Amino acid sequence: MTHRLADLAAMVGADLEGDPDRPIDGIATLMAAGPGDLSFLTNSRYRDQALASKAGALLVSRDLSPETLADLRTDLVLCDDAYRALADLMTALFPVPEVVPGVHETASVDASAQVDPTARVDAFAVVGASSTLGPGVVVGAHTVVGRGCSLGAGTLLHPHVVVYDGTRIGERVVVHSGVVLGADGFGFAEGAEAASQVKLPQVGVVVIGDDVEIGANSAVDRATFDTTTIGRGTKIDNLVQIGHNAQIGEGCILCGQAGVSGSSRIGDRVLLAGQAGVAGHFRIGDGVQVAAKSAVFQEVEDGRQVAGIPAVPIAAWRRRNALQSRLPAMRGALRALERRVGELESAGRGGRDDPAADRGDET
Amino acid sequence: MTHRLADLAAMVGADLEGDPDRPIDGIATLMAAGPGDLSFLTNSRYRDQALASKAGALLVSRDLSPETLADLRTDLVLCDDAYRALADLMTALFPVPEVVPGVHETASVDASAQVDPTARVDAFAVVGASSTLGPGVVVGAHTVVGRGCSLGAGTLLHPHVVVYDGTRIGERVVVHSGVVLGADGFGFAEGAEAASQVKLPQVGVVVIGDDVEIGANSAVDRATFDTTTIGRGTKIDNLVQIGHNAQIGEGCILCGQAGVSGSSRIGDRVLLAGQAGVAGHFRIGDGVQVAAKSAVFQEVEDGRQVAGIPAVPIAAWRRRNALQSRLPAMRGALRALERRVGELESAGRGGRDDPAADRGDET
Amino acid sequence: MTHRLADLAAMVGADLEGDPDRPIDGIATLMAAGPGDLSFLTNSRYRDQALASKAGALLVSRDLSPETLADLRTDLVLCDDAYRALADLMTALFPVPEVVPGVHETASVDASAQVDPTARVDAFAVVGASSTLGPGVVVGAHTVVGRGCSLGAGTLLHPHVVVYDGTRIGERVVVHSGVVLGADGFGFAEGAEAASQVKLPQVGVVVIGDDVEIGANSAVDRATFDTTTIGRGTKIDNLVQIGHNAQIGEGCILCGQAGVSGSSRIGDRVLLAGQAGVAGHFRIGDGVQVAAKSAVFQEVEDGRQVAGIPAVPIAAWRRRNALQSRLPAMRGALRALERRVGELESAGRGGRDDPAADRGDET
Repeated sequence: MTHRLADLAAMVGADLEGDPDRPIDGIATLMAAGPGDLSFLTNSRYRDQALASKAGALLVSRDLSPETLADLRTDLVLCDDAYRALADLMTALFPVPEVVPGVHETASVDASAQVDPTARVDAFAVVGASSTLGPGVVVGAHTVVGRGCSLGAGTLLHPHVVVYDGTRIGERVVVHSGVVLGADGFGFAEGAEAASQVKLPQVGVVVIGDDVEIGANSAVDRATFDTTTIGRGTKIDNLVQIGHNAQIGEGCILCGQAGVSGSSRIGDRVLLAGQAGVAGHFRIGDGVQVAAKSAVFQEVEDGRQVAGIPAVPIAAWRRRNALQSRLPAMRGALRALERRVGELESAGRGGRDDPAADRGDET
Repeated sequence: MTHRLADLAAMVGADLEGDPDRPIDGIATLMAAGPGDLSFLTNSRYRDQALASKAGALLVSRDLSPETLADLRTDLVLCDDAYRALADLMTALFPVPEVVPGVHETASVDASAQVDPTARVDAFAVVGASSTLGPGVVVGAHTVVGRGCSLGAGTLLHPHVVVYDGTRIGERVVVHSGVVLGADGFGFAEGAEAASQVKLPQVGVVVIGDDVEIGANSAVDRATFDTTTIGRGTKIDNLVQIGHNAQIGEGCILCGQAGVSGSSRIGDRVLLAGQAGVAGHFRIGDGVQVAAKSAVFQEVEDGRQVAGIPAVPIAAWRRRNALQSRLPAMRGALRALERRVGELESAGRGGRDDPAADRGDET
Repeated sequence: MTHRLADLAAMVGADLEGDPDRPIDGIATLMAAGPGDLSFLTNSRYRDQALASKAGALLVSRDLSPETLADLRTDLVLCDDAYRALADLMTALFPVPEVVPGVHETASVDASAQVDPTARVDAFAVVGASSTLGPGVVVGAHTVVGRGCSLGAGTLLHPHVVVYDGTRIGERVVVHSGVVLGADGFGFAEGAEAASQVKLPQVGVVVIGDDVEIGANSAVDRATFDTTTIGRGTKIDNLVQIGHNAQIGEGCILCGQAGVSGSSRIGDRVLLAGQAGVAGHFRIGDGVQVAAKSAVFQEVEDGRQVAGIPAVPIAAWRRRNALQSRLPAMRGALRALERRVGELESAGRGGRDDPAADRGDET
């Protein structure tokens, strides 16, 4: 489907420098775009590619420097947040195919399950007793939905998702392949015999808010009691672990391989970067950002940026890292001072012995 | 099913302060419990919730302080290990539903497999040639059991587990969805051509002891030769990686996203906290505890607690962390000393130059 | 199948010290081997086991010390790279069973898919519209191949793999259970409402080169545009995360639980050790080695070995770690010096006060 460039610009509230009638029928990267494509430049480091691009028009951020934008010979679509505009334009130009409703002949749907006539259940999927699938829900091939689950309107479970009994999923949720929702929390008490453990039955459930997305092979454990909760609009990347009874707020971003221990409380709009971890039973405030590979072992107040193991304010972490590289020089300076002080002491007092113990300890 | 409070207390060897005949038909958290529920208080930080709770009775640890227990108006069930008692009572009050035996009509079970008549095989499950399923075994929907596998009595494989050929699983083992047992170990030799690798066929197997539990999306690789072994009673959380030929002892606790490299030998009752890692070919002694996010790169003696990357005794790790925060001050002190020593030298010797090189290096 | 020992030695270009006609019908570890087995000794720490082994012959590295090889009473097969020779001999002695072609009666293969007559599709597998399966391809039980995918000759997908639409897989690729190829990249733009995110449709694909192996439960995301690429011969362990648009070179080794962020560019023959992470948008040069548990936050030049969080050259990382353990002593030395300098100042100037602020800051 072809659009007028001016119409696309208007769609995202952008200014247009160029031909309003230019026909655009796709979006592509700088190197892959042709004359019928809109491309985008959001980072000055790609200026050379922009100059060489055959794109018909470029979506650019207004805050790029004049040097970056100089000499670009394509039409320009200028906007405040080019990344956001890109998302909006891609949504318009790459529409999600309509869901063809129906239950595949090989699917196994319990007679007591309620499947909206506009929902789709793919090959070999299983839907357990008393579960409800709302309008437009898609249950992918091989996905298993247990008993007593609910899936809100427009929710999409890709192939090979497992939803344990009692899980409640909101509307427009996207769950990727390999995700496991509602497996037992990791709760054991020491048993009477040596090296034995008594399992605590995990009788709570998982509740997923509207507009959540969960990446491939992530796992959200059911609660021991009550609920493990993922708040509305939170986005979870691949291979992320959410422990039992964790409470994740709204609009959070949990990057790949991050982990949240049981009973953690994560506020709204929290960012956990890749491979970050949060220990249990603490509250992480609203808007907190945890750097990649960091481990939070205590409460963090609203709005803080933290890094390190254990995590500290990111400025302190940067200072420590910088000083790490100076440790060898500090040690050298310390030894030089010891020598000089020893000489001063010898000179001043007529030959007092160097107190070698101090240096000896340090080696 | 309703129980007398006194009967529940007796079941876990606890003392009762209150009405022995109080009817209890559930267990719930402090905030969710009603008059027919038993709740629990195991940590003084939840005292306020205990005061506000509508629970009929409270399970409490005897070692809580008198201040914590003061003014609680509910009946009290006092015991030495409330967490353990909670596990025992939950097991009694939330019984696992009985397994309905039978092979689902859509399951694909090889004719040579031996399935005990009390076992259950769910929808679309696959059981390969010559595998044996003991009494009460449950093979969940879509779970694939390869050829020549054995599953001991009472073992439960949740939906979407994959068990490669030759895996031997003990009794009462619980395996959650997405777990992969027996995939090839990661063994390659450098090939003759640049950037080529020659795969070592992985001809060993995986052996899982009795009473093991393995969390969602974890992976245990088969051995190159012989076995990768998970000892009796060991509990493994979600997204844990166990490399080929690793030997994990009995009664261990491996928390979420922990990783054990190939050929590691882990003793009994070892704790790996979340996201911890153990490098290959080392022995980790009995009772060792590895802190979250730590990496063990060498042998650890029995009973040690270690932390850090690389892991060191936890006391040393704490000391280093504390000193990290003092590095800026140490550097300042060093510079001040250099200045003072310089002044002393100038004063004593009539103007010798400051040996700036020491400071220069350090900057 | 039985081999002459001399034939096996010749197969890997090794020298034989012993009986050329010894019949060998298996390979086993030192402790498990019997007289009909070849075993192997590649590390001097297993010398005691070698002395006690009942193996008929030993494959040994020529570079082991004479002390390690002394007194071994078995026949010896001496070669330059015993690990490589082991791989080659295992490949010969443990041949992969031939693929029995055919589509299982329960599999769901779209009418428009092209399945080579020598390919095999197992129980409950799904192959989507317009996908092509080359000669000798195996699609394991329950594996889902989406629409428009291609699988090159000899590629093996174990059970429970998910391949999203449009993925292109080369020849002789091995993909283990639970792997997800082509799930949506983690791309969101901040939305207009608080805590809302706008999803960027992920319209690119995943391309996997020839001879790649991918371990259990790993995930490779599709690109936002264009491709996420895994180069020829690269081996990926379990639970590894590869973000959207990452470009992984040829012959790389990515160990368990490693993570590569979106848009990273990894050169050829790169090693990421276990639980290592690479942040996005940087280039990691050819031959780079990243130590276990390290995090790369910037570009790394060809051939470097790096370690730490953030990763630095490994020599610097070792020096820092060594100095870490000396921090308490350094601090003690600093305090001792302050005292001594204070005394010198008092002596030389008749009682000047100690400038306590320096020490105070540091505490």
